[in-house]
Amino acid sequence: MASTMKALSKLAPEPGFVLHEVPVPKIGPTEVLIRVEKAGVCGTDAHIYGWDKWAQARIHPPLVIGHEFMGTVAEVGSAVRSVKPGDRVSAEGHIADLTCVLCRTGQAHICEHVKIIGVDRDGAFADYIAMPEYNVWKLDPAIPDEFAAVFDPLGNAVHTVMAAGVSTKSVVITGVGSIGLMAIPVARAAGAASVYAIDVNPAKLELAKRLGADETFDARTPGLVDEIKARTNGDGVEVLLEMSGSGSAIDAGLQMVRNGGTAALLGIPSDDVKINLAERIIFKGLTVLGINGRKMFETWYQTQALVKSGRVDLRPIITHVLPFDQYDRAFELMKNGEAAKIVLDVKGE
Amino acid sequence: MASTMKALSKLAPEPGFVLHEVPVPKIGPTEVLIRVEKAGVCGTDAHIYGWDKWAQARIHPPLVIGHEFMGTVAEVGSAVRSVKPGDRVSAEGHIADLTCVLCRTGQAHICEHVKIIGVDRDGAFADYIAMPEYNVWKLDPAIPDEFAAVFDPLGNAVHTVMAAGVSTKSVVITGVGSIGLMAIPVARAAGAASVYAIDVNPAKLELAKRLGADETFDARTPGLVDEIKARTNGDGVEVLLEMSGSGSAIDAGLQMVRNGGTAALLGIPSDDVKINLAERIIFKGLTVLGINGRKMFETWYQTQALVKSGRVDLRPIITHVLPFDQYDRAFELMKNGEAAKIVLDVKGE
Amino acid sequence: MASTMKALSKLAPEPGFVLHEVPVPKIGPTEVLIRVEKAGVCGTDAHIYGWDKWAQARIHPPLVIGHEFMGTVAEVGSAVRSVKPGDRVSAEGHIADLTCVLCRTGQAHICEHVKIIGVDRDGAFADYIAMPEYNVWKLDPAIPDEFAAVFDPLGNAVHTVMAAGVSTKSVVITGVGSIGLMAIPVARAAGAASVYAIDVNPAKLELAKRLGADETFDARTPGLVDEIKARTNGDGVEVLLEMSGSGSAIDAGLQMVRNGGTAALLGIPSDDVKINLAERIIFKGLTVLGINGRKMFETWYQTQALVKSGRVDLRPIITHVLPFDQYDRAFELMKNGEAAKIVLDVKGE
Amino acid sequence: MASTMKALSKLAPEPGFVLHEVPVPKIGPTEVLIRVEKAGVCGTDAHIYGWDKWAQARIHPPLVIGHEFMGTVAEVGSAVRSVKPGDRVSAEGHIADLTCVLCRTGQAHICEHVKIIGVDRDGAFADYIAMPEYNVWKLDPAIPDEFAAVFDPLGNAVHTVMAAGVSTKSVVITGVGSIGLMAIPVARAAGAASVYAIDVNPAKLELAKRLGADETFDARTPGLVDEIKARTNGDGVEVLLEMSGSGSAIDAGLQMVRNGGTAALLGIPSDDVKINLAERIIFKGLTVLGINGRKMFETWYQTQALVKSGRVDLRPIITHVLPFDQYDRAFELMKNGEAAKIVLDVKGE
Repeated sequence: MASTMKALSKLAPEPGFVLHEVPVPKIGPTEVLIRVEKAGVCGTDAHIYGWDKWAQARIHPPLVIGHEFMGTVAEVGSAVRSVKPGDRVSAEGHIADLTCVLCRTGQAHICEHVKIIGVDRDGAFADYIAMPEYNVWKLDPAIPDEFAAVFDPLGNAVHTVMAAGVSTKSVVITGVGSIGLMAIPVARAAGAASVYAIDVNPAKLELAKRLGADETFDARTPGLVDEIKARTNGDGVEVLLEMSGSGSAIDAGLQMVRNGGTAALLGIPSDDVKINLAERIIFKGLTVLGINGRKMFETWYQTQALVKSGRVDLRPIITHVLPFDQYDRAFELMKNGEAAKIVLDVKGE
Repeated sequence: MASTMKALSKLAPEPGFVLHEVPVPKIGPTEVLIRVEKAGVCGTDAHIYGWDKWAQARIHPPLVIGHEFMGTVAEVGSAVRSVKPGDRVSAEGHIADLTCVLCRTGQAHICEHVKIIGVDRDGAFADYIAMPEYNVWKLDPAIPDEFAAVFDPLGNAVHTVMAAGVSTKSVVITGVGSIGLMAIPVARAAGAASVYAIDVNPAKLELAKRLGADETFDARTPGLVDEIKARTNGDGVEVLLEMSGSGSAIDAGLQMVRNGGTAALLGIPSDDVKINLAERIIFKGLTVLGINGRKMFETWYQTQALVKSGRVDLRPIITHVLPFDQYDRAFELMKNGEAAKIVLDVKGE
Repeated sequence: MASTMKALSKLAPEPGFVLHEVPVPKIGPTEVLIRVEKAGVCGTDAHIYGWDKWAQARIHPPLVIGHEFMGTVAEVGSAVRSVKPGDRVSAEGHIADLTCVLCRTGQAHICEHVKIIGVDRDGAFADYIAMPEYNVWKLDPAIPDEFAAVFDPLGNAVHTVMAAGVSTKSVVITGVGSIGLMAIPVARAAGAASVYAIDVNPAKLELAKRLGADETFDARTPGLVDEIKARTNGDGVEVLLEMSGSGSAIDAGLQMVRNGGTAALLGIPSDDVKINLAERIIFKGLTVLGINGRKMFETWYQTQALVKSGRVDLRPIITHVLPFDQYDRAFELMKNGEAAKIVLDVKGE
Repeated sequence: MASTMKALSKLAPEPGFVLHEVPVPKIGPTEVLIRVEKAGVCGTDAHIYGWDKWAQARIHPPLVIGHEFMGTVAEVGSAVRSVKPGDRVSAEGHIADLTCVLCRTGQAHICEHVKIIGVDRDGAFADYIAMPEYNVWKLDPAIPDEFAAVFDPLGNAVHTVMAAGVSTKSVVITGVGSIGLMAIPVARAAGAASVYAIDVNPAKLELAKRLGADETFDARTPGLVDEIKARTNGDGVEVLLEMSGSGSAIDAGLQMVRNGGTAALLGIPSDDVKINLAERIIFKGLTVLGINGRKMFETWYQTQALVKSGRVDLRPIITHVLPFDQYDRAFELMKNGEAAKIVLDVKGE
C-alpha cells in the first residue's frame, strides 16, 4: 500500500478546498482502514467550502473534508472481528465516546462528546479513511454504490420518519433539500398514507412529485395552512417533518399539524426562533422531537431494509456523479441549486 | 328542589364577581345535575376576577365561574345510566364534542371544540351545575372531599408527570404554583428517583420541600443550570416538568435536561418565546410534549390510584378552606401569594 | 316505512338459517336505524350456520345473524347528533358498555361486557339494524360499498398490523383466511419491508401472492422455520401476525420470530395450546400481543386512510357478491374453500 | 500479583463443587481483570451444585461457578479506557457478541450468541475474573458492597418491572423467590400503586410483607383469582410479574390481569405450559413480555438510581453473608428454603 494518498482538504481559514497528497492514516487495534470509492457531497461541505460564519467557528484547518461515503476495507486493527479486508462498507460518521450514559443506553447518536468526520476530524474525501470498528457498516450486496455513498443523509431522513411514526398517517414535509427529498420515498415506504411537500424551489418541488409526494406547494402560497387542512378533513396532518430550518416554515408547519400530532425537527435554524408555545404546542398537545444523526444502528438496518426492498429508489435524487477532481464544479452546482445530491467518484475506474 | 340557587358570577366586563340568585340549571336526557359541595379556586378564576387582557378577550358575561369541584348527584337525565341521585362525584370540566377524530381516538382532552365550564359556559361556583354524563366522575369513598374538589388541577399535574414518564428518573420542576406543588408528590409516587423544584417564591419552595422535593432552588441563582447538572453526574435531568410559563424558565429548564430527555410543557407563556431550537432541542434529541387538560379518563383513574394509595397527600397544599361568601378574601390571598390552594365550602354545613 | 322486514335468522338450535319477516327494530334516543345494503359473510356466521359446539354454547335463538355491513341511515333517535338520515354508514359491531374502566380509557374494544351484533344480539343480515350512535361510522364517499361492507374484518387485520408495528420490518403471516389475506396489503401499505405468507390452502396462497406477499409457503414444508430464517439473515422475522388459531402454526410462527420481535395473535385456537414458554417467548424477549376486535375508532380511521389512499385494494379478496336469498350458496362456497370473502347484496338493486 | 488463585468449580459431572487453586486468568487488550470481593449465590448455582437435568445438559466441567459479584479492578487491557485499576465495579454477566443485529440495536441482553459467566465460561466465585470492558459497571460510591454483589438478580427484577411499566398501577407478583422479593420494593419505588405477592412459602410471604407488599396470599387459597379481582374493583390488576415459572401460577396470574393489561414473564418453566390462549390472552387483549437478563445498560442505570435514592433497600432480602469456604452451607440453606439471598464474602477481611 502507498504511504500517501489524495485528500480534499481545508488548508487555510479561507474559501475553497485543496486536493493534495497526505499520509495514509495509521489505524489502531480497534480501527479499520477503508479505501474510499464514492462519497456524497453535503450542504455542510458547501458551508465549509464557502467558509461561512458557522464554518469559521467550528472548523480547524488543516482538515480533510467529507462524511458520506462507501468503499472497501483495506486493513483492520488487531482486535477487529466484525469486518475483514475486502468487505464492502459504509460507516457512521458520528464517532461517539461509547462510555457515557447515552452511549451505554442505546443513544450514541446524541452522545455529548461526538466527533464528526470531515468536521471535527479528518473525513472521507480521500483515498483512505480510518474508522473505529464500531462505526463501520457492512453493506448488503443488493445496495448500489451510489446509494451506499449517501446512507448518512438517507439515514437522517429515515431516522426522522421513523421517530415521528408515519404508518397510515398524513405527512407534511417542510423543506425539500436533499434530505427532505429523500424523506418522501422513505415516508411512503414506511407507510404514510399521504405526503405533502413544501418548498420555495420549483425544481425541487417537481422532483418531490416524481419521488412520490401526493401534492407539492410553494411555501409562499397565501392561506397554505388552510390548504393543507382542507386536505385532511379540516384537522391538519398527523405528522410534520421539518427539514428547512426556517423559522417561518416551522411556524407554518406547526399550524398544519393537528392536535395530538407529532412534529419532528431535523432542519437547523441558524438563529433563535420565536414560537407561540401556547397556541402551537401546549394547547394542541403536540409532541415535538428534536432529531440528530442516525440511531446506531437501528436507523442503518431500517435504511438497508427500505433500499433493499426496492421501495426507496434514490436515482431521481442523485442528479450527478462527478470525478473526484471536479469538486469545484460540485460546489458550484450546489450553489446554483442545480443539483439535488452529488456523488464524487473518489476512486474512479 | 328550589328553582333558584346562589351562584358566583361575572356579570359585567369589569373586575370582581357577584354572588347572586340564578335559576337552577335544567338538564337534558344525557345530563346530570350536581349539588356542588366544595370547589377549588384556580389562577384562571383570579384572572377572570381581576379582568385582565386574557379574560377580556375570552370571557362573555354573564357567566357563572369555577371549574374545580365535587358534590352529590341531585338529578339525572332519562338516558343516564352510569350515575344516580346521591352519588358522590367530581367532573371533568372540559366538555368535548365527542364526535371529532380526537374524541373518537381517545384524545378528547385536546378536542378542538372543547368548552370549559366556568370559562366558556356556566361553572361550578354555584349550588348546582349541569354536566354531561360523559364528564361525571364517580368518587371513590376513600377520597376526601377537599382532595376531590381539586382533582382538576391535580389531574393536570398527573397528566404532565405521566406523559413525561418519571419512573426511576431525575426530574426538574420549574414553577411551583399549586399545580407545580402537586406535581412533586405525584412525581415521587409515580416513581421519580429525584425531584428538584425551582421557583422565585421562598414560601412555595419551602412547601415544595415539605411535599418531597429533594432540593429546591431560587430560579435566580447564578449558575443554576450547572448546579442541576452537578447533581446528575454532569448530564442533566431526564425530565423537565415546565409549570411556570416563563420564557426564561423554559430556556433554563431545557438546558437542564440531558440529551435524549423529555420536557413536558404545561405552563402557558403569555407571549411568544424565543428558543434556540438547534442547541436546546434538535442537537439534544429532546422530546417536547405540549400538555393540556387531563386525559379522559386515564388521568382520572391514575389520580384516584395515587390519592387512594395514600402516596399523594394534598393537605400541605390546600392551605385554606373558606366559606362560599368569603370569595373576595380568597382572591386577595391568592394575589398576595399567601395561599397555595384555596377550596370554597360552597354548601357549608 | 314498513313495520316488518326480511331477516336471516337462527330460529332453532339446529343447523341452517331461515330468511323470514320480522318487525323493524325500534330505536331509543341515542340509537340509529340503518337500512342495510351490503353485508359480509364471516367464518363466525358459518360456525353458527353449521351449529358447531362453539355456536351451541354461545348462540341463543331466535337471533338475526350478521355483523359486517354498510348501509344508509334511515332514522335517528332524539339525542343523536353525529349522523342524520341519508348518511352512508358502516358500524362497529362490538357494542361496549362505555362505562367501565376499559371503555373510559380508550379500550372499548376489549370491554368485558361487550355485546356483538349477530352473536349476542340481533345482527345485520336484515333490511334494518338498530345501532348505538357511538358505534356508527360515517363512510367517506371514496370507499366503495363492497369494501365498506367488510370494514369489520379489514379492521381486524389493520388492528393486528398496527398493534404489531410493521414499518420497515419483515413479517410472517400464518394463516391466510380472509383476514390473513387482508393483512397482506395492509402490512405492505403500513410499511412492511417484506411479507411472507403461510397456509395449507394452495388457492389462498396463490391469492396471497397476488395481494403482495413476497413469498408464500405451504405450512407443511419440512424445515420451514429455517427457510424463513434464511430469508432474514438467519435471525428470523421481526413480526409474526398469527391468523390461523392453529397450535402448530403458533409454535412454528414463534420460532420464526427473531429475538426481541413481536407476535400478534388474532387467530382463535379452539383448544389450549402447549407452549415452550422458556424457549419461544422468555429467553427470546418476545412481545406477544393478544388482538381482539378493532380499536374504537383509531382502527377505523387507519382503515379508511389505507383504503382511501388506494394502497389497500380488496378486490382480489371479495371473490363473490351474492343476492341476499343465495345465503345457502354462500355458506357452501365457504365450506368448500372456494371463496375468500363473500358479500351479500342485502338490498339488491 | 500471584499467578494462582482460589476458585469454586464444578470439576466432574456430579453433585457438589470444589474450592481449589487455578491460574489467575490472563486478559486481552479489551478486557479487565477484577479482584472479586463479594458474590451472590443464585438458584442457578444451586442447580449446578445439585447437578440436575438442566445442569447436566448445559454445563461442561471444569467450570468456575458464579455470576453475581462486585470487586475492584486489578488490571486493564491496553485498549481499555473506561476503568482503571482500583475502581470499584460490578459487571454484567451476559457476554454478548456485540456484532449481531440485536447487539447493534440496543438489545444485547437478548443476543443469540450470549455466553454467561459461571455457566458457559468461567465465573465469579474466584479471587479474580476476566471481563470484557464493555461488561464492566463502575459502582457509585453510595452503593453498599452487598447490594452491588447482587445487581445481577436485582437487575432482573428492575428489567421486569420497567418493561411492564408499573407507574400508578396495580401489580401482582407470582413467586417471591429472591428476584420476586426484590421486585416488591422495586415496583413500589418505580411507582406501583399497589403490590400483591403470591407464593406457597409462608416465610417468603412474611418477607414480602416487610418489603412493602400491600397484601400477600398463599397460592393455594381457593378463589384466589376472585380475591385479587375484589381488590381491583372486579377488573383485575394492570400488571402481572411472573417470577415462579410454575404453569399453574402462570394460568392463575393471567386470569388476575385485567383486559388490556400486561404480563411480564421472567420465571422459567421447566416444561411446556398449556395455555388457553383465547381466553387468557387474545380476547383480553393482553400484552405478554418475555424477560431475559438486564438491558445493557438502561437497567443498570435504573437499578443504580433506585438503590441510590434509598427507595430500594435490600437488607431484608440478604439474609446471610457467609465466608467463601462455607459454600456448602450456603447451598444447604437455599435447599431448606431458610435463606432469601446469600452473599459469599470471597475476599474476606
